[in-house]
Amino acid sequence: MKKLLIRNIGMLATPLGRAAHRGAEQGNIELLRNAWVLVEEGIVTAVGAGVPDGMICAGASELDAGGRLVTPGLVDAHTHLVFGGWRQNELALKLRGVSYLEILERGGGILSTVRATRQAGEQALYERARAALDEMLSMGVTTVEAKSGYGLDWPNERKQLQVIRSLGANHAMDVAATFLGAHALPAEYKNDREGYLRLLCEEMIPAVAREGLAQFCDVFCEKGVFSKEESRRVLETGKRCGLIPKIHADEIESIGGSQLAGEVGAISAEHLIVCPQEGIAAMAKAGTVACCLPATSFYLGAAYAPARAMVDAGVPVAMASDFNPGSCPSLNLQLVMNLGCLKYRLTPEEVLTAVTLNGAAAIDMAGQIGSVEVGKQGDLVIWDAPDLNYICYRMGSNLAAAVIKRGAVVYARRSAI
Amino acid sequence: MKKLLIRNIGMLATPLGRAAHRGAEQGNIELLRNAWVLVEEGIVTAVGAGVPDGMICAGASELDAGGRLVTPGLVDAHTHLVFGGWRQNELALKLRGVSYLEILERGGGILSTVRATRQAGEQALYERARAALDEMLSMGVTTVEAKSGYGLDWPNERKQLQVIRSLGANHAMDVAATFLGAHALPAEYKNDREGYLRLLCEEMIPAVAREGLAQFCDVFCEKGVFSKEESRRVLETGKRCGLIPKIHADEIESIGGSQLAGEVGAISAEHLIVCPQEGIAAMAKAGTVACCLPATSFYLGAAYAPARAMVDAGVPVAMASDFNPGSCPSLNLQLVMNLGCLKYRLTPEEVLTAVTLNGAAAIDMAGQIGSVEVGKQGDLVIWDAPDLNYICYRMGSNLAAAVIKRGAVVYARRSAI
Repeated sequence: MKKLLIRNIGMLATPLGRAAHRGAEQGNIELLRNAWVLVEEGIVTAVGAGVPDGMICAGASELDAGGRLVTPGLVDAHTHLVFGGWRQNELALKLRGVSYLEILERGGGILSTVRATRQAGEQALYERARAALDEMLSMGVTTVEAKSGYGLDWPNERKQLQVIRSLGANHAMDVAATFLGAHALPAEYKNDREGYLRLLCEEMIPAVAREGLAQFCDVFCEKGVFSKEESRRVLETGKRCGLIPKIHADEIESIGGSQLAGEVGAISAEHLIVCPQEGIAAMAKAGTVACCLPATSFYLGAAYAPARAMVDAGVPVAMASDFNPGSCPSLNLQLVMNLGCLKYRLTPEEVLTAVTLNGAAAIDMAGQIGSVEVGKQGDLVIWDAPDLNYICYRMGSNLAAAVIKRGAVVYARRSAI
Repeated sequence: MKKLLIRNIGMLATPLGRAAHRGAEQGNIELLRNAWVLVEEGIVTAVGAGVPDGMICAGASELDAGGRLVTPGLVDAHTHLVFGGWRQNELALKLRGVSYLEILERGGGILSTVRATRQAGEQALYERARAALDEMLSMGVTTVEAKSGYGLDWPNERKQLQVIRSLGANHAMDVAATFLGAHALPAEYKNDREGYLRLLCEEMIPAVAREGLAQFCDVFCEKGVFSKEESRRVLETGKRCGLIPKIHADEIESIGGSQLAGEVGAISAEHLIVCPQEGIAAMAKAGTVACCLPATSFYLGAAYAPARAMVDAGVPVAMASDFNPGSCPSLNLQLVMNLGCLKYRLTPEEVLTAVTLNGAAAIDMAGQIGSVEVGKQGDLVIWDAPDLNYICYRMGSNLAAAVIKRGAVVYARRSAI
């Protein structure tokens, strides 16, 4: 039996629970000094303080946390992990004063990533995404959500989802899959919205469900992309096929996406930069997780989602990277944590819940991950930090000293442990 | 004879020159595709494109850059590298609504770092700063400026400067030393400004010069800290003793610091967040390097220095980290480069000059470092990037694959080369 004892933990900091934390609970973090954690066959079987219990720890291999801070493994609940190409040239063009519209006309923007993703072979997409997962892991992330949405036709959406499935099967990371065929209207349907919506609802969504390629169905509900009613149609179709709804809502203009999240009972709503009061109220009522993406606001120079107001209104808030080649070329969830404090004005405790338990809840995994407690997976990060404040304060450095996934050390900084 | 050939460079990107670049020249970057660089005894002796010259490269050990981008080693021209303690608790307090004044009254703020630095032994300060230098090096920085200013009495200012000198002697990094005794009024001189100014001008500055502990003399010219005339007195004293003037100017309020920079012929002025037109004109006229610190603006949620306007007005702009435990707990110069594009609206080419040649000029080293060309030190970074745009775009990841200092590989990412 595989048994790992993590001992000499200076401080164990974790939310406790199996569902999203909201309101005052979001900042409720259990602190255990001089702690130890026992993981058996990938599952936490005991947590204690002081000298580890010799009886139950007998035969375990030992890992010395060196008096450091330990938290649950981080959960990145919103990424566009699998894509072809990068778009660094668009940054340079923007800085030279070329407008987004001109960039689009020159073949840039999201549809250029669609072209590159369609052209890329499955193996090439896999290798690139695997490298990104490795790096995320080295920064303390142990579970990731990944969306399709750069294929926009069935062979290529399927290719993306198959890559996501292979990554989940082969990589140490848990990978949750979301179908986002409704990410944009593909060029070939430019003059046939109804045709693409029918392709989505009559062919792609049922096929995704039939082949078990995704657990969630997402839609980009935005002016100029998919309307509130089109988004409802996509998400209701997904629900009928057994896919749990998610929604990109209120990113640029508020057209009712967050309200729709409440109406269809979405497990999460994403972005929410311009989320109105009614949207906050709808999400609070439905228990929808607000998945906020501050690094995207940072990269775009846009406003920041009203995450502070959401926590105060009783919406469970998660934070994720939104890693993608256009609006957020960063996969660094520690930077997201810094932004959670500096820009959202969340406390370090609220931030920790946002990237652990509430991130887990956004992908329906709060029963298995997102906290360090008996019965959950043994996913932990040993930090080069004495306390939670330090992680949110020391921006710019990777503070993960070691990362443990299901009781196995999957990353260790040179000479860290 | 020690000889290193760096070959298979996909693109060599570097400014060329031995003095600061200003105006349109700031964005003037030489691009050499399929390049190679020869370093002998620490100095670049040949740069070429295509197949390396077999004659002159004979007997060299070879480093394959793998078709990657290569730039000069980065120069971080403004840091407070040597200090005791961290101040992560102040972030948490601020987020809970405690004002900066209250934090000061509770013993926080800069004077708490002074207390911790005074209490720390020289060896402890050395070890912490050495670890920071190691990390900076791993991010592509090959030369650093370090200031005193947390001692505020002679024994402790001297202790800081001795640590800086030891680091320069023992670490791969070049370390330039700046005396910043005029960083704040120490608690014990609270009611005796003149007494501290006399201590600075009559004892400390002459002693720094006599012992050769620093090359530069800096002052925090700010409302509530040192006035313009007090700053002038400090800098003129420094000049008489042979110390080159630098100045913290226009960070919070504009009280004439940037104008003073021009008047005393400062080699650089730092921060410049609220720099007025007259200050820009004075610096342009004097050729003072504007050393902008965008990560500090980011951390504090403050405005950003008008770096774009400065470049356009012919002021040579450098960018640095300002690494310190209060207003900028980040040592990541790549983050500074991202901010240079995203917040200052400089182009990637202007950003590269800001963190190489102009950074070198800010510490009077533009003749030795800051570009890859014959006669300069062999300080180079091999980047996991195909071009300059990519470095400024891919925020959040450390993109340095390998770092070369005076022709020796001093850092290599696992399996990078």
